[in-house]
Amino acid sequence: MELDEARWLALEPEPGETLRVALARTLRDAIRDGALREGVRLPSSRALAEGLGVSRGVVSDAYGQLEAQGFLVTRARSAPQVASVPRREEARRQADVAAPAPRYDLTPTTPDVTLFPRGRWAAAAQHVVRRSSFAKLDYGDPLGEPALRTALADHLGRTRGVVAEPEQIVVVQGTAQGVDLVLRVLRRRGAHRVAVEDPSHTTQHERIRAYGLELVAQPVDERGMVVAGLEADAVLVTPAHQFPTGSVLSGERRRELLAWSHETGGLIVEDDYDAEFRYDRAPVRALQGVAPRQVVQLGTVSKTLAPALRLGWVVATPDLVDELRQAKRLVDDFSPALDQLTLAELLARGDYDRHVRRARSAYRARRDRLLDELARHLPETRVDGVAAGLHVLLRLPDGTSDVETADAALRARIAVPPLSAFRVRPSGEAGLVLGYGRLHEASVGAAVRALGRAIRPLF
Amino acid sequence: MELDEARWLALEPEPGETLRVALARTLRDAIRDGALREGVRLPSSRALAEGLGVSRGVVSDAYGQLEAQGFLVTRARSAPQVASVPRREEARRQADVAAPAPRYDLTPTTPDVTLFPRGRWAAAAQHVVRRSSFAKLDYGDPLGEPALRTALADHLGRTRGVVAEPEQIVVVQGTAQGVDLVLRVLRRRGAHRVAVEDPSHTTQHERIRAYGLELVAQPVDERGMVVAGLEADAVLVTPAHQFPTGSVLSGERRRELLAWSHETGGLIVEDDYDAEFRYDRAPVRALQGVAPRQVVQLGTVSKTLAPALRLGWVVATPDLVDELRQAKRLVDDFSPALDQLTLAELLARGDYDRHVRRARSAYRARRDRLLDELARHLPETRVDGVAAGLHVLLRLPDGTSDVETADAALRARIAVPPLSAFRVRPSGEAGLVLGYGRLHEASVGAAVRALGRAIRPLF
Repeated sequence: MELDEARWLALEPEPGETLRVALARTLRDAIRDGALREGVRLPSSRALAEGLGVSRGVVSDAYGQLEAQGFLVTRARSAPQVASVPRREEARRQADVAAPAPRYDLTPTTPDVTLFPRGRWAAAAQHVVRRSSFAKLDYGDPLGEPALRTALADHLGRTRGVVAEPEQIVVVQGTAQGVDLVLRVLRRRGAHRVAVEDPSHTTQHERIRAYGLELVAQPVDERGMVVAGLEADAVLVTPAHQFPTGSVLSGERRRELLAWSHETGGLIVEDDYDAEFRYDRAPVRALQGVAPRQVVQLGTVSKTLAPALRLGWVVATPDLVDELRQAKRLVDDFSPALDQLTLAELLARGDYDRHVRRARSAYRARRDRLLDELARHLPETRVDGVAAGLHVLLRLPDGTSDVETADAALRARIAVPPLSAFRVRPSGEAGLVLGYGRLHEASVGAAVRALGRAIRPLF
Repeated sequence: MELDEARWLALEPEPGETLRVALARTLRDAIRDGALREGVRLPSSRALAEGLGVSRGVVSDAYGQLEAQGFLVTRARSAPQVASVPRREEARRQADVAAPAPRYDLTPTTPDVTLFPRGRWAAAAQHVVRRSSFAKLDYGDPLGEPALRTALADHLGRTRGVVAEPEQIVVVQGTAQGVDLVLRVLRRRGAHRVAVEDPSHTTQHERIRAYGLELVAQPVDERGMVVAGLEADAVLVTPAHQFPTGSVLSGERRRELLAWSHETGGLIVEDDYDAEFRYDRAPVRALQGVAPRQVVQLGTVSKTLAPALRLGWVVATPDLVDELRQAKRLVDDFSPALDQLTLAELLARGDYDRHVRRARSAYRARRDRLLDELARHLPETRVDGVAAGLHVLLRLPDGTSDVETADAALRARIAVPPLSAFRVRPSGEAGLVLGYGRLHEASVGAAVRALGRAIRPLF
């Protein structure tokens, strides 16, 4: 602890107190309160005496008293350190008694972070930190860095057929913040009902309800979300790869959905989930590209690079840009600029595209392997959905409870959620949503065998 | 454009269309819509032909037609590039007709970003990107990275007398998000009225009103915010250095405020503004350290390092931790992990403390210089507030309008806001809030002379 840091330590003797008693009390209180934490090294007695304007003897005496009382530990020729002492205010919360870590973590929605291109990210980040103009370190545009928005407009146009000017893109902290901002704006506009696919990400259900909006559940079948009967101010949909069923919104359903929006004025919020990871054929074009005035597109690099980066975007409809910009400004001003510029640099260098191709081929191989092993060790099950993404939906035999099945897996230390966990309304369908982002290819066989042993007794 | 990226380009001939006509139409639409943007290089005719499963002649013909129509530009032996063409949907918004950049930007609340320790930040960031465990790239804790929360608990204890366990710190995107999250939680708890200091940051007023909360304005005098008459569910206060008046909350007012909280159950939200930059004496201890169950402390590195990093923290009262964690999870899951770990590394290396000391001494010199020049060139004005922070409040002679004065300065291309701009309720007091974060020491003299020339005629 530099003396400089201890400037808040005011020496204010109480009536009748000597300076040394007052100083000992002040330090003891700071240690007991936890402001001076275990291991903190205090200033030398000479430095503190100077800083407080008292004689060195006053500090030495106070230190000696605190050492005798067990608050400080002193070694020869070095400044005293704060000892481990019971706190007056025991605020530390007990760490939850941790469940044993799963042997196999098959929870979905997580990519394989070991594929993250550390070297390329680090090189681009270095370039940005050392070379950016000083202005980039100052307060920035709530919409995001122009360089990234331009790079994204180009990239999304080329790869997803998105039609966007840089001026209508809002850089956000992942799809999470994208959804939150859109909901905030919808709420402000007087929206009451927001529809989701049933099943879908439950955190999105929570986000909708947190704004006091009514959650409308639309069923999903093998052609994606059912549009018939949709009554809502907006709908959150995953046309490229429905989570978690794995279906793709069919051409007919796409047309129905656009017609619904056209007729009712309802907003389509397209979570362009897993569009980068389609393995069997070309992914369908983003809905946004077909109807840029009716569709807000959300995207993220959480799956293609890493969730820890918290980088995503909202391609806004022209009439929503200003309100989204305002909402972003109020919730956190703007997203971290250096990270945005690093992603722009990665896009400009072609490193991002190269990485996505490499990751796609790794996941495709892993998925093929997984399907082989499932056919061998869990022949009673069926894999649904198109060849895409980072998970499969494993349908269980009729009459099986997926909750009980997932519990049985967990007892064997295999973490895999039941389809029921993603439901708004209960349904008879039983499935496991099996992610392979955390499952290395070499472990696929062993994991599926272990899963088979754990759950086949329930069929 | 890699062929791979163009996978969304579906070739769907309409009745009677040949393949080459259909392809030319598809590409032309994508260019007109803006999905394929100016400068994008298309795949070679051979590659695209292979990808679409058509003969190479079909692609060559379509490319030739589009070139003749001005949609593509082709140079010998290279793939065609999209030309500059008028868009079907001219969504580009005209850039605002920019006002000429000010010669002197004296707006407050911005630090001198040229002091940012690029080399040290870059070194710490490299270490983090290359050495962190893979788990750090995955989804993280909504509260923030444990390494940063521990480093902050130590740092805030040592330097500000804050009493906090790492488990009660929430890492956020600057004070902006800290305030937003606290307001979100208060609203959810049924709060109706939130008080601010008058004058204060107007963006905070907007944040409060955006949640439908009533804004209560408490006057500020030379002893800080007036506590008498305070009726609110929470109060946002800047005890270390009131913005923008520059006063410090007096010992008596601190006791009154804590008593108010104790009696009414009202929450004190302490924006620990400018506490790092006190020049004349020791800064007062953070209020949080005196009453950790009544005070939420907000802090940020926006002033000490750079706003672009978007790194701040909320030290929560024990009863608010879980709700703040939940709110953070819903708004954006968690803050970018690599940035958090880089800051933790900077704190652990002592680089952060060294930088703050260096910056403090630079700002102190600049402030001294500024006061000298103001006394010389604007003798009719008076500087209020303690020696701290990155701005001074310049009181204008009685009867002067600060709005007109600021307008006169702006006509001379000097940007400096009037005190009135920070008011909730109008007041007769006239002042300019003069920031020196963007003003280099060498320019102080010239800037103050220019300001004097521009505004003295109004006195």
